[in-house]
Amino acid sequence: MTIGMQVSLALPDWVRAEVAMDRLYPDRKERMALAIGLSRSNVAHGTGGPFGAAVFDGTGRLLGVGVNQVLTSNCSAAHAEVMALGSSQQNLRRFRLNAEGGPITLATSAQPCAMCYGALIWAGIDEVLIGARSDDVQSLARFDEGPLPADWAGELERRGIAVHRDLGRDEACKVLRDYGESGVVY
Amino acid sequence: MTIGMQVSLALPDWVRAEVAMDRLYPDRKERMALAIGLSRSNVAHGTGGPFGAAVFDGTGRLLGVGVNQVLTSNCSAAHAEVMALGSSQQNLRRFRLNAEGGPITLATSAQPCAMCYGALIWAGIDEVLIGARSDDVQSLARFDEGPLPADWAGELERRGIAVHRDLGRDEACKVLRDYGESGVVY
Repeated sequence: MTIGMQVSLALPDWVRAEVAMDRLYPDRKERMALAIGLSRSNVAHGTGGPFGAAVFDGTGRLLGVGVNQVLTSNCSAAHAEVMALGSSQQNLRRFRLNAEGGPITLATSAQPCAMCYGALIWAGIDEVLIGARSDDVQSLARFDEGPLPADWAGELERRGIAVHRDLGRDEACKVLRDYGESGVVY
Repeated sequence: MTIGMQVSLALPDWVRAEVAMDRLYPDRKERMALAIGLSRSNVAHGTGGPFGAAVFDGTGRLLGVGVNQVLTSNCSAAHAEVMALGSSQQNLRRFRLNAEGGPITLATSAQPCAMCYGALIWAGIDEVLIGARSDDVQSLARFDEGPLPADWAGELERRGIAVHRDLGRDEACKVLRDYGESGVVY
């Protein structure tokens, strides 16, 4: 085996065709609708798990998007939030998204898992919008969310990251439920 | 701005020249020495923060390595552990490293931060070897480790991941201290 020296993660081709990149997403509802739409499309296209995320600047401009690509990329870190934050950072060519001003918002169709929780802390965002709850993810889609600090939301707030929960929760749960009932869980 | 659809992380060129890829690393001491050596070289080459990691199969074969590439890759997820786990998974073409048997070991020069803590849970490893403690990272190199569950090690053990701490701690701390005293912290 040759030992490769890179981690290469790519979003599926349908993303560029389906996502309106050039419009603005001024309010929370539209931002969350995009994240949930990505989660739904990822399942519909058979390209990964039922999770979507998107990053916006203060004007509502889209900076990057993500869907779960664990299976397709052979990489357990390729969660929707990591894809959205990482592609946004590489699009802006800076590892701290709000280094030149904010607020920067991450919208994610479901509560971040233990890994993505840490990832969003380092990414330089000011606000996270969350659709489905961790319990929804575990009960409806049977994905493990992993161990979080007891006061996970308070820890974010204390670091200057506002947390808005249950946005579009019903729609987000519908995607998780449909996925869970399909029987495809890894 | 064109919105890119990928996250591309690459290790620095010196890694292939310096790391002995073809030998076996049968014991914990040698595995940790490799991880710490990577952390030291990353600082010496000016290619990133003072962190290194490596992944081994049960025979001691090297599966992949990582060093902190946050600055060079413009990506806050490019920590040593994420690079080592992700490159190992892509080398083996599977997202769960121990899917075809173990034990799989991650050696890391310092206690994983909040993000890498979650990342190692999803990666399919059986054992984590840790050099410097979280307190060392924060006091010597002034890196924030982020919020972890109160019983972070117990949570790993309960998920079947054995935790071995303080391996080569003095050597790992020396790298952190030298880096901290250099004044380059992001």
